Order: sequence, then C-alpha cells, then structure tokens
Amino acid sequence: MADVWINGDKESMLDPRDRAFTYGDGVFATMAVDSRGQLRFAESYWQRLQDGSARLGFHWQPSASLLAQIHDLAAKHPLHCLKLQLSRGVGGRGYAAPATPQITEVISISPLPAHYRQWQTDGISLATSSVKLARQPLLAGFKHCNRLEQVLIKQHALPAGYDDWLVLDTEQQVVESSMANLVLLVEQQQQLHALVPSHAYAGVAGVMRQQLLQALLAEGIHLHIREFGISELRQAKHLLLCNSLLGMVDVCRVDNSSFARWQGTARLQQLLVPH
Amino acid sequence: MADVWINGDKESMLDPRDRAFTYGDGVFATMAVDSRGQLRFAESYWQRLQDGSARLGFHWQPSASLLAQIHDLAAKHPLHCLKLQLSRGVGGRGYAAPATPQITEVISISPLPAHYRQWQTDGISLATSSVKLARQPLLAGFKHCNRLEQVLIKQHALPAGYDDWLVLDTEQQVVESSMANLVLLVEQQQQLHALVPSHAYAGVAGVMRQQLLQALLAEGIHLHIREFGISELRQAKHLLLCNSLLGMVDVCRVDNSSFARWQGTARLQQLLVPH
Repeated sequence: MADVWINGDKESMLDPRDRAFTYGDGVFATMAVDSRGQLRFAESYWQRLQDGSARLGFHWQPSASLLAQIHDLAAKHPLHCLKLQLSRGVGGRGYAAPATPQITEVISISPLPAHYRQWQTDGISLATSSVKLARQPLLAGFKHCNRLEQVLIKQHALPAGYDDWLVLDTEQQVVESSMANLVLLVEQQQQLHALVPSHAYAGVAGVMRQQLLQALLAEGIHLHIREFGISELRQAKHLLLCNSLLGMVDVCRVDNSSFARWQGTARLQQLLVPH
Repeated sequence: MADVWINGDKESMLDPRDRAFTYGDGVFATMAVDSRGQLRFAESYWQRLQDGSARLGFHWQPSASLLAQIHDLAAKHPLHCLKLQLSRGVGGRGYAAPATPQITEVISISPLPAHYRQWQTDGISLATSSVKLARQPLLAGFKHCNRLEQVLIKQHALPAGYDDWLVLDTEQQVVESSMANLVLLVEQQQQLHALVPSHAYAGVAGVMRQQLLQALLAEGIHLHIREFGISELRQAKHLLLCNSLLGMVDVCRVDNSSFARWQGTARLQQLLVPH
C-alpha cells in the first residue's frame, strides 16, 4: 500500500467533509521519480495541476514547503511513483464551492508497476472497451478526480493475451487507453505522420503525451491533433502508448488488428522511460 | 458545519486512500427527517443506494447497526437533513476496484435549508445554465460521487431574481435543476399530462421524483417519461420542482417565460414537504 502525506503530515487522516470525498472536487498528477531521485518533468506537472485547478475554478500553486517535501521524498524514493492530489478541501454550501478554498494536498508514493519493464520490451495488446467515455468539453483534457468511467472500464476482465483497454467515446471516437495516451503513426507518401486524439471532448492529455509529441516533432514527424475513429486507427502503421510511469511502448495489436513495431521506439524510450 | 459519523464513529477521520476521495467512487443519498424524528421514505433510499452501488459494481445493504444508528440520529434531529454516503473504501489497484470492498459509510446531519419554506409558499424562478451535462448512460439516473458538473454549474452566479439553474444536456435536452427534479404539466384536450425527463442519459432520478410521480398518478394525471427540449418546456402550463428536502414547489419562471402556479401544488405539498 502507498505511503501517504496530507498537507505535509505523514499518515494523517482526512476530514470526511473534504470535497474530493463528497464530489470528486479536485485534480491529481502521477509522476515518476528517476533513479537519481529526481522528479521527471516537474515543471510541466505543476503547470498541469495549476491549469486543471483553474478549469475547476480554484487557484493553486505549489508552495515552497510542498516543493521541498516533494524534493525530499523523491530523493528517498528513486524509481517510484509520486502522486500529488489537490482537493478543494472542506467548505462551501453543497455543490457550491467556497470562495477561498483551503486546498488539501495529498502526496502518495508507491513502487513503479513491475510489469512495465516487460511492456517496454515486448509491446502490448489492447482490447476495445465496451465502456464509452461521455463527451464533456468542460472536463476534458485534464486529470480531475471524477474517474468513475475509468473505474467502470477496469471492472471488466481483459480477454486473455491483452494488456489494457482501448477506450472510445460515445461518438465512437478514439480517446486513449484506460491509463495512457495513444499516438498513431500513419504513412503518407512514404513519410510518417502522427495522428493524435484531440481530447477536446474526453480523455486526459497527459504530460508524457506532450513529451512524446515533442520527441516526434524532433524526429521530423508532423503532428495532426484531431478526432478519428477506429477504422482510421486500423490503418495506422504503428501505434504508441505513453504515460508518466510507462514512458512509451509499442502497441502490437488492437483486438484482431496487428501493428508493426516502430523502429524509433527504442530511441524515444531512452528519452521517455523513467531510468 | 454538518456533524459527521464514519462507520459508526462520530468525528472520526478518513483514510486518504479512500476511493471516494481519489476517484469519487461511491454513491450518496440526501434524506429528510420529519418533525417526529422519522426518516422519510427510508426503504426507497436503501433501495436506491443499493441500486446505485450495483451500477458501480459493488454490493451493499444496510446493516442492522447502521439502521439502528440512523434511527437514533433521526430521532434526535427532527426536521434535519441526513446524508448517507457510501464509498468503495480503501483498496484495489489504481482504477481497478477491490473484489471485496470494505465500504465506508458516512452519515452527516445538517439543518434543512432555511429558504425552502419560502420557496414552497412563493414558488421559484430558474435560469438556464450554460453548463451542459454530458450524456453517459452508464452513470445516468443515480446519485454517484462524480459531481463536478454540478460544482461547475454552481460556480456561476445566478442572475438577480432567480433561485436555481435549469440544466440541459449537451444534446440540449432538459434534465433537471442543479439540485432537484423537474416535472412539466402540459394540457392536452383539457386534460393535464405530466412530462418527465427520462434520465437515461444524464441527471439523477431522485426518490422524491418517484413520490411526486405516484402522487400525480393518484390525481389521475398521465405520465410521459421521455426526452424533450426547452421549446417543449416553454409550452408547459405548470412546472414543478422536487427533491427530498424541498418536497415539491412551483416553478413560476424559466428565463423570460412565465408559468401559472398549479392548483394541486398545496395539496401535494401536504404529502411531500417534510413536516
């Protein structure tokens, strides 16, 4: 079980009136600590958490004491996962949020998933989930604490030989996997182009997605960020999946469709996989 | 501030790993205690909480000790609001829920909103919210703890003279108010018919809605439960709003459209308003 700190204190407990508990009123980020005990892409995560809080209507920035604690915890936990959750805390009248919230900051630390090493080497297979994500532009793109759709997705048992779910929205547009972002590499006139779900209506545009897109641009690959369906996905040459802990992996199969592994994967993994 | 009990203990605290805190993984019900200290429509609420838990994939039923405690608290708090929240508790791997969850039961008690008495007498006005609800059939109809849409709705200031928001979904179908269910009374061939949002795609079908629909049936009014838009709403003769604490009130105005008060309201309030 993860070790947890609330507002700086280890193993303290939460007020049951906390708005993340009652309404899921908060945001979170899952970050990797590298082998030297450094948090990877830390600035991008603070920015992401700030943007997400602003989308929900509250202002947050990391205090010096929070940053010092995270720094300290990361140094003591190389190659671990550090999750930071921000809740709007206690207060307000029912759904109406308090004007000046006392934000609850929760840090938890847990080991990196053990099977990710093998996924990075072997690639993975996705099965399409029967659970479709609702299209809510006001909550799309950032990682808030209303995650029942993901809980429902994970409630189904994966078919044998599959590693994660591919998730579409209710308009049958491709969004992400149950816990990672997806990028298609398609060939046009003998050139690779990256096709990326927009996350304007559903899904989370993660920090590692941003890193992967930058790395693809640096490889001379053009990006196309827009909506597309499963038939376009099937025509892709390569499929990549990324998140903060996983870095980036090849997707070798989606349902019954196979995809060639990309020759650039090993090179980009050097940049993106926590090590 | 509300008094709170967790798993039977007053003012105890929550584990920050609780899944309602991290993912909003739970359900809740808001119930009224009458002047004799009795919980109103208790059996319907247990059923509703059971159905909601089942929709999320966990099994719950009220234990004898929980029922005894609720009985006792209700007796000591006539004309109060008693909220029961059920969370899937601590456990699972990320979004994946534990097979046998240790459910967290949280009771909170707070006064009935003071302005409801006046709403019951005077009727209320609704303004249409710019926040539209996403259409997610898997989460529609029951009161789960993913309530960010409602938080966003309440973040806007109501225009002067308006009491609550009318809420549509992203397909412009009428769903509910920010905290209550809506029923239209329309006249067809000199007979009143009730037109009721279906909640198949969004919104919560509350226990008081069920009570109101039964009362309307008893008045000889036919029910039509289906989707409809704002133009059909504007053609209604009367509009009724209901929830557990409010009982039922007339809606006199939606934006710039006025509605006649219904002559049956006072009679049905005798049945439905907590007293």
